[in-house]
Amino acid sequence: MKNPAAQDFYPDDLAQCYGCGRLNPHGFQLKTRWDGDETLTVFTPRPYHTATPGFVYGGLLASLIDCHGTGSGALAAYRAEGRELGSDPPKRFVTAALKVDYLKPTPLGPPLEIRGTIVEVKGRKVVVKATLSANGVVCVRGEVVTVEVPESMFRQPG
Amino acid sequence: MKNPAAQDFYPDDLAQCYGCGRLNPHGFQLKTRWDGDETLTVFTPRPYHTATPGFVYGGLLASLIDCHGTGSGALAAYRAEGRELGSDPPKRFVTAALKVDYLKPTPLGPPLEIRGTIVEVKGRKVVVKATLSANGVVCVRGEVVTVEVPESMFRQPG
Repeated sequence: MKNPAAQDFYPDDLAQCYGCGRLNPHGFQLKTRWDGDETLTVFTPRPYHTATPGFVYGGLLASLIDCHGTGSGALAAYRAEGRELGSDPPKRFVTAALKVDYLKPTPLGPPLEIRGTIVEVKGRKVVVKATLSANGVVCVRGEVVTVEVPESMFRQPG
Repeated sequence: MKNPAAQDFYPDDLAQCYGCGRLNPHGFQLKTRWDGDETLTVFTPRPYHTATPGFVYGGLLASLIDCHGTGSGALAAYRAEGRELGSDPPKRFVTAALKVDYLKPTPLGPPLEIRGTIVEVKGRKVVVKATLSANGVVCVRGEVVTVEVPESMFRQPG
């Protein structure tokens, strides 16, 4: 597979996420890939993902930064271990903390490009800085602290 | 109207938001109300708003904090001016910055209660701290810097 996405290799029972699960037919099915030393996710909002007319809903933008962070976390963790994507054991990250700065309104229509820079890989934690651009203009900046999925999230709540 | 919601009074052309617009049939149609000196939004995720099985998707949680912040911003701005909700001119806020800390996985199923405390009302800006609870347990904390909708968001992008 040429330049596979982190999400292509999530185990089936961790591939239900509304943001990035390939097995969630209602969700965004985001894909995060390396682009050199940056990570890249591209998503085109649907017409109803509106804030005020003509602009993208801020919660979706936060979601895209968030999911891009977890996908980037998985990519970075494989790379830090010198392993190919898809080799065992699988890597799956969740978000511990999220910061989003809305620099300017994001136009609704064009594909959005979310680019990540890996700031830190330490133990089970990966920190990712991200920008979200439309038509080549950065509209949103974010930072995601993402951690390998804890055991508690494998157990369904009682 | 007994204890109306901020969103009940958004002008029609600012009531399309995927998060809180009463005129967006695809969206969450959130409602934010005073509960004493706190603000309160309640939302029950849909079954497909999943992260790992049994838990709520983090992007949705960020969206709820975000929208609760803008609804709270409008409530606080009316109150700061000593005005009734729905009196003219209308108040409509958007998010400038968002911070979310995921303290523990949020169970998928029960209604989620998002409570806000108004930290600051200054000029066009309102700062809101929020907690998100499921079954009475705080799972997420957030802070939202929200500002009155700028003129640039009334003009659709060219």
